Amino acid sequence: MPGYDAPIREIRFLLEDVFGYDENTPNLPGFEEATLDVVMAVLDGAAEFVKDVLLPINLPGDREGCHFDHGMVTTPTGYREAYDLYRQNGWPALAAAPEWGGQGLPPSVALIVREFVASGSMSFGMYPGLSQGAYRAILAHGSDELKLIYLPKLVDGSWTGTMCLTEPDSGSDLSRLRTRAEPDADGSYRITGTKIFISSGDHDLTDNIVHLVLARLPDAPAGTRGLSLFVVPKRLAEDLPDARAGTPNRANTGSIEHKMGIRAQATAVLNFDGARGWLIGKPHGGLRAMFTMMNSSRVGVAVQSAGVAEISYQNALAYARERRQGVAPKAPGSPQSTSQGTSQAGSDGRDPIIHHPDVRRSLLTMKALVEGMRAFYIDAALLLDVRAAHAGNPEGEAAENRLALLTPVLKSFLSDCALKVTDLGVQLHGGHGYLHENGMEQFYRDARIVPLYEGTNGIQALDLVLRKIGLDDGRVFESWLADVDQTAARATSITGLASMATQERIAAARLREATAKLRAWHAGNELDVAGAATDYLQLFGLVALGALWLRMACAAHEGRERHPQLTPFYNGKLGTAEFFFRRLLPAAEVHFEAVMSGAAALMTLHVDEF
Amino acid sequence: MPGYDAPIREIRFLLEDVFGYDENTPNLPGFEEATLDVVMAVLDGAAEFVKDVLLPINLPGDREGCHFDHGMVTTPTGYREAYDLYRQNGWPALAAAPEWGGQGLPPSVALIVREFVASGSMSFGMYPGLSQGAYRAILAHGSDELKLIYLPKLVDGSWTGTMCLTEPDSGSDLSRLRTRAEPDADGSYRITGTKIFISSGDHDLTDNIVHLVLARLPDAPAGTRGLSLFVVPKRLAEDLPDARAGTPNRANTGSIEHKMGIRAQATAVLNFDGARGWLIGKPHGGLRAMFTMMNSSRVGVAVQSAGVAEISYQNALAYARERRQGVAPKAPGSPQSTSQGTSQAGSDGRDPIIHHPDVRRSLLTMKALVEGMRAFYIDAALLLDVRAAHAGNPEGEAAENRLALLTPVLKSFLSDCALKVTDLGVQLHGGHGYLHENGMEQFYRDARIVPLYEGTNGIQALDLVLRKIGLDDGRVFESWLADVDQTAARATSITGLASMATQERIAAARLREATAKLRAWHAGNELDVAGAATDYLQLFGLVALGALWLRMACAAHEGRERHPQLTPFYNGKLGTAEFFFRRLLPAAEVHFEAVMSGAAALMTLHVDEF
Repeated sequence: MPGYDAPIREIRFLLEDVFGYDENTPNLPGFEEATLDVVMAVLDGAAEFVKDVLLPINLPGDREGCHFDHGMVTTPTGYREAYDLYRQNGWPALAAAPEWGGQGLPPSVALIVREFVASGSMSFGMYPGLSQGAYRAILAHGSDELKLIYLPKLVDGSWTGTMCLTEPDSGSDLSRLRTRAEPDADGSYRITGTKIFISSGDHDLTDNIVHLVLARLPDAPAGTRGLSLFVVPKRLAEDLPDARAGTPNRANTGSIEHKMGIRAQATAVLNFDGARGWLIGKPHGGLRAMFTMMNSSRVGVAVQSAGVAEISYQNALAYARERRQGVAPKAPGSPQSTSQGTSQAGSDGRDPIIHHPDVRRSLLTMKALVEGMRAFYIDAALLLDVRAAHAGNPEGEAAENRLALLTPVLKSFLSDCALKVTDLGVQLHGGHGYLHENGMEQFYRDARIVPLYEGTNGIQALDLVLRKIGLDDGRVFESWLADVDQTAARATSITGLASMATQERIAAARLREATAKLRAWHAGNELDVAGAATDYLQLFGLVALGALWLRMACAAHEGRERHPQLTPFYNGKLGTAEFFFRRLLPAAEVHFEAVMSGAAALMTLHVDEF
Repeated sequence: MPGYDAPIREIRFLLEDVFGYDENTPNLPGFEEATLDVVMAVLDGAAEFVKDVLLPINLPGDREGCHFDHGMVTTPTGYREAYDLYRQNGWPALAAAPEWGGQGLPPSVALIVREFVASGSMSFGMYPGLSQGAYRAILAHGSDELKLIYLPKLVDGSWTGTMCLTEPDSGSDLSRLRTRAEPDADGSYRITGTKIFISSGDHDLTDNIVHLVLARLPDAPAGTRGLSLFVVPKRLAEDLPDARAGTPNRANTGSIEHKMGIRAQATAVLNFDGARGWLIGKPHGGLRAMFTMMNSSRVGVAVQSAGVAEISYQNALAYARERRQGVAPKAPGSPQSTSQGTSQAGSDGRDPIIHHPDVRRSLLTMKALVEGMRAFYIDAALLLDVRAAHAGNPEGEAAENRLALLTPVLKSFLSDCALKVTDLGVQLHGGHGYLHENGMEQFYRDARIVPLYEGTNGIQALDLVLRKIGLDDGRVFESWLADVDQTAARATSITGLASMATQERIAAARLREATAKLRAWHAGNELDVAGAATDYLQLFGLVALGALWLRMACAAHEGRERHPQLTPFYNGKLGTAEFFFRRLLPAAEVHFEAVMSGAAALMTLHVDEF
């Protein structure tokens, strides 16, 4: 059974040393009380909850899976009790508005809690996780009446939410959605259609589920401009002329999927058969309302990615320290003592595998990615704080724009990293990694969903190159890249970091050149743009991670002077930064060359030549 | 349910156009009758068997898994019937010696059949697959008496074999094996110990199972030099003074593993509790005898890798041709017709996703890897033919040496490729790839074992850098690389291939330089050698695949002139070669830089700094 301790020390390092949290979020209107001390106290509680309540049900829940009988979904043993505790502890209300019963904490805090929860059980985290999107969409676009009915229940966790987009014939391409909505005399609508891949689509954790459903009104134009968004509860939430509150709505669960992973999460096929729904937002304005939820979900995927990668890394590290195999090679000229410390080998002469260079390579790759992932999502989470505090003013808009730019990178690059990390976690365990009982393969299987859902990574890459890098005529991108350059400039002057800074500057210049190429192509050459998209996103992600590792290295360098007792921790950061620049960043060059080649070599084959 | 058609056309291309099979294997003593026509007839039969018998049980078998009750293993529904048919059709006897009931076909033919079988069901293929190693070990090292008892049964498939190496405390490090063997008065031995991860370790497909067990004699020296190899049948195979043939031996199945994949394959924990065993080979000569089996198994892993990658690619390609999403970008200046052909979009205006550049990138990666993998293992398989025909003479020894060099690369590089391909197969299906019913995720889970077993890929990389590149003072490697250079030289003169040839030559030069560096380090600096091992193996693999793609491109270029009616097939080869050199080979540079940096940046952290 895998172990886990929430990375509290890591979070403190990032918030305090790297991002200067106390000089930022608590200065924002509304978040004055959310000081670092308060935040860390909240996180300590979350750490305890995850370790005591979620970790024990994760592996058994994967084995048992969800059950579906007679149209009813039952979650695995222990999930209902865990959810009750989660509610009682007030976790669903963390970042919600006080007027709806929320605790009004900054969004960043809620996201960090979600990382811990994802480490403890990705499947579990998705039940309350999906409620966030429903809450936000109703808050932003719902009528006062709908808000009164739904928001308090979503905030206190009595009900959970879903997002119902995908249909059998329409995955990445929402323009083909067919679900219909017909107006009823009482102001509600009758929703008819089938939705698939609905995460948390049905379960036994709460009495009611709030589905947010994309559908077409009778007079809807074709394509994505004809989509409207509806609230469709599993059970009616208010008395209607012909039906009482609590009556089952005509939203039936057709089946749940038998999946590779997140097996304690019920992914449902929902059949809406004239189900009652209520319009939120404007008619045909569904896509915009849905984007509110989708962007938030995509950042959520980045956070999940970090969470599942973290627990895989923790267990790989523990195994590498404990497992003894063979004698590790020593540095030349040092037959007894080694660069890794002394007396590493046990009485049987074998070394823990952490002393083998190839195992080190894997561990450092995991560490560099996991800690980089966390820095990346927390950097974005702090933008969420600014956006929340400054909604509607220029500061808020700037944060919103940068988030919009980074969202596809966060979603895709971090989900790819999660696969790499959890894959290494399996490999590092040798044959033991392939066994269910050790949990490593579950982390991989759970993680395998992140590059797929909330828009596949390929779709995110297209979003990045076709829309995001051109935001505000490229100024959003330029402003972000200028910050990267500034980070590199700052690092150049610090002893020991100059070489890393140079490499980052070169990679950033490559990204600038690649971006110029894409923007030049954009006028009339979508083929090359599309052919370059994924490699461009990878290049972007590496540059972003490089900038964050430079910031972490700078902070560690300063920290070592201020807190000599923490020298090992800071040394770990500096050594990992060095590894990142030496062994991981160089891939940027390959991605750069691929971007510049566009779609060349991609479209030469006729379909029948494959 | 996934589909599959054995890649007969691909095999013919490789054997006929690329490797000139008929000018080689049938000229070897003993294989005169194995002409290409004969081989292709055998393969047609195998193709049919796999499609009709194995494919239908693969997905259900994964769902059902193996059963373990009261110490007995039952394979999933249909596996026993499939195995009976497999036996009746004579597949186990294909490449075995006629004197033991075999058909005497070249080993290459049996390996190609194993590729098809691995596509149909990796789990199934391992039941008869493990028998090969047992057959070979007894043939090479067993007494005449043991041969008479065991070989006919292994050859006709009445019994299957296993390799019992790993113990709970000893995975990669065989020096720690503890299983004991004590001589008995009747010439047999009493074997006591626990073996884990025993593939095909128990099952209900045959009446008996022949375990080959590494154990220590009472006077054995410590380490790997104290290991001896024993035949330990599940049921006694001959009458003994105190026991009749057919009596269960004291070899009990403790449990079977709950695994990530190959779930229809019983991976057993075996408890030998004074079980009767018979020594094969010399006392303390077990490791050498076991290597006979292990090297053959490692090439077998390469073949499995190709098989599971092939079926994933076939289904990804079929899905990409059929699934319609969005409108694909067109080449600049060609708003109607595209480079991919005409009238691609259906009546609803959407394109099959194969027309989207980013999907192309995935498909071409899969195609380039799968076809390169097959070329690689068949190249090696033809060396097996030479070795088998020329056992003990210089030609045989040259083939043996080259095989020894290539084996770790075949095992590791191809197993890594299998993960990449099956991962892309999942991703290309979007959310549908995550569902059990579509089979794509099973291919990934099944494939996930190949980098782990028969020596992890990290161990293979160490074998390559510490032993193999120095074989015969480096001459084995030099001879292989000279052939690569020659391939590149030949391609340089062919119109359209010169640029690919140049890239291959550059990569080969990098490999030569990296090899020189490793050999220089080797004297006293194992740390850098070990730190560079995995990247070196990747570099080696890319150069090897490049040489094979050049050979395929040359053959396709010639083929197009000789068989104009096959132009689409040959165009596909040439376009894929171009893709390989443009998008996949460039990673060689990154691996080269990593090799040259050795263990730098790997060992800087103290263990407590992680």
